[in-house]
Amino acid sequence: MRVLVLGGDGFCGWPTSLYLSDRGHDITVVDNLSRRKIDVELEVESLTPIRPISERLRAWKEVSGRDIGFVNLDLATEYDRLVDVLLELRPDAIVHFAEQRAAPYSMRNEKAKRYTVDNNVRATHNLLVAMVTTGIDASLVHLGTMGVYGYGWSGSAPIPEGYLTVKVPTPDGELEREILHPANPGSVYHMTKTLDQLLFAFYAKNDGLRITDLHQGIVWGTQTDQTIRDERLINRFDYDGDYGTVLNRFLMQAAIGHPLTVHGTGGQTRAFIHIRDTVRCIEIAITNPVADTSKPRVLNQITETHRVLDLAKLVGDAMGAEIAYLPNPRREADENELIVRNDQFLALGLQPTTLSEGLLEEGRDVAARYRDRADLTKIIARSVWKAGMETAEDLMTELPDGLPN
Amino acid sequence: MRVLVLGGDGFCGWPTSLYLSDRGHDITVVDNLSRRKIDVELEVESLTPIRPISERLRAWKEVSGRDIGFVNLDLATEYDRLVDVLLELRPDAIVHFAEQRAAPYSMRNEKAKRYTVDNNVRATHNLLVAMVTTGIDASLVHLGTMGVYGYGWSGSAPIPEGYLTVKVPTPDGELEREILHPANPGSVYHMTKTLDQLLFAFYAKNDGLRITDLHQGIVWGTQTDQTIRDERLINRFDYDGDYGTVLNRFLMQAAIGHPLTVHGTGGQTRAFIHIRDTVRCIEIAITNPVADTSKPRVLNQITETHRVLDLAKLVGDAMGAEIAYLPNPRREADENELIVRNDQFLALGLQPTTLSEGLLEEGRDVAARYRDRADLTKIIARSVWKAGMETAEDLMTELPDGLPN
Repeated sequence: MRVLVLGGDGFCGWPTSLYLSDRGHDITVVDNLSRRKIDVELEVESLTPIRPISERLRAWKEVSGRDIGFVNLDLATEYDRLVDVLLELRPDAIVHFAEQRAAPYSMRNEKAKRYTVDNNVRATHNLLVAMVTTGIDASLVHLGTMGVYGYGWSGSAPIPEGYLTVKVPTPDGELEREILHPANPGSVYHMTKTLDQLLFAFYAKNDGLRITDLHQGIVWGTQTDQTIRDERLINRFDYDGDYGTVLNRFLMQAAIGHPLTVHGTGGQTRAFIHIRDTVRCIEIAITNPVADTSKPRVLNQITETHRVLDLAKLVGDAMGAEIAYLPNPRREADENELIVRNDQFLALGLQPTTLSEGLLEEGRDVAARYRDRADLTKIIARSVWKAGMETAEDLMTELPDGLPN
Repeated sequence: MRVLVLGGDGFCGWPTSLYLSDRGHDITVVDNLSRRKIDVELEVESLTPIRPISERLRAWKEVSGRDIGFVNLDLATEYDRLVDVLLELRPDAIVHFAEQRAAPYSMRNEKAKRYTVDNNVRATHNLLVAMVTTGIDASLVHLGTMGVYGYGWSGSAPIPEGYLTVKVPTPDGELEREILHPANPGSVYHMTKTLDQLLFAFYAKNDGLRITDLHQGIVWGTQTDQTIRDERLINRFDYDGDYGTVLNRFLMQAAIGHPLTVHGTGGQTRAFIHIRDTVRCIEIAITNPVADTSKPRVLNQITETHRVLDLAKLVGDAMGAEIAYLPNPRREADENELIVRNDQFLALGLQPTTLSEGLLEEGRDVAARYRDRADLTKIIARSVWKAGMETAEDLMTELPDGLPN
């Protein structure tokens, strides 16, 4: 298939691009390199040394013999060029990762809140309008988030795949109606994905666009079978308080002898997926067509759920790290249950890569290898959900001597 | 109260600004004059000759002795100036009309679709971020639309005021949950108001902003007790296929001897409100505080419902006009029932101005007075919901002789 990967230079987009290329698809990455520019703004870098996109693509050509195209394009502001790209490449599928994806960054300050909404909504909407206007016959696969559902809304009832059948009272009884699961976003970032859902619903209904929305859990892991083939292909590893995701942060913290930073009680239960499964799920989504085009297909892209504190204990016990209980910079429930349906992906052939000590060690090893690149002032999460909320001081000012390799 | 009226130069914003000023409130209009610029783009003008905003405000000072401030500001693109205005004026209430408000225009072409989303989402979100950042203690009253609910979703059950209590299935029974009424927008414009709802829900929950969302029906009528006091204060009267609303279009068509343009069967039932009630509702909303700040208050700003064909027959019979059944440029159900709850406004003291022959005649008279300003090529609705949909030819090329005054 001919596939455009929008946001194909990012943490999920890059390994997806390589995986799909390796599987024989014809890939073009479209990216404005915004993730690298936010690194510059935040004065932090991926723990792993990522190479410029052109070098990445040259390295992939060397190791695989396969070409990946690249277009440097800002979806939110370069609509006419987007139309030109669609007409020129006429993709069979478009994978849309091109959104600001960190909840803490989206709450950081007024500029970041506004950027997250402006960028994400316009990127998605421009894409939809361009697809309608050009009339290209492509399926759209979008990275959503489990965060659209919120946590705890339905108690111990499982979170369905996008849609919920409810009973609505009427004067003489009840009606049964299928609805999009009510939106309960916990940050400006998550909110943008609930806005995307409404954009998708409208353009499916009005224009018959074929859309799949993937509500993904928290991604962990770094390398895939492709990114590991050459150091120049290495994937991002974010450990900072804004972009680092919880399990990868614990692995990095363990690797440098830093206490594991648990916010609040650690009673938050979240859904997880390994980066190796992310890339597989994307291929499943683009190669299995949407049956009902009157509404978006929604798949929950997760493989397991864990309580944050249990993850901290697991990593702490396996790697000899302490746990530090810090004030929570987010406004969220201290504790919640979470059961998530992912029946569709399982039926379509996903074989889940679940949390195992081997994969944890791989993550710790990646972190250990590059730990000298860590900026210890960037570890504590300091983007607060509301002005005046408390945050922690730095817990470590220099790397300890004698760390194991 | 000190009140900012965002979009205070428009069809609803202008009479609201005058009404609130007349009632003793201290009003500042904030507007980028975008509605007038769209007139330029569409090569059409309000049937009534509206004066430049400065002249309008001078005339109001002359007839009332009261000052209304004016700031020419684009909410979507001039965030820093918006913050300055909030800090300088420290309003008690902000009335937010500042969005592109025509469904047909929002479907007209790719540029208009993109403008509607970019402008409306950014205007609302910038305002919310600015309110949080400045910490001003103002209540926000926003013009939503009945179109967020869609038509026919709940059959003959009444449309509630924003929220719906539903039963959700669980493995061992049912949960009862209050949800925002599911979004069923019928155009890109209506969709932006469903996006606004999610923005409001988040900023109420996270930041405690006091927000009222007014889901308004189709507005008809032109003049209020204030706009009628001097011709320089006259309100807009849109009759064109993009911005004209159905009942005002019928009145204008009757006044020029044009057949009344019914799309499809005319079986669409819609909710209506007279412009005199719109302005009263706004004052009720700003002077009655929101009790529960954890979520937006939603009020249905409507006074009655009518089937479009019944309105056409009423106007046709009273004024001797024919009905023309034209292809529907919209994708919507041919027919629907509609019952709408507006208990909260009634409880807060609204005394509905319902459809009466006297008010119809007033509308027809306004239209007759300015009928020489009509561009007959602008009457037929030609913005289609999907490429290739059929539209009608012009039904009239010149004004008939001997029209009654």
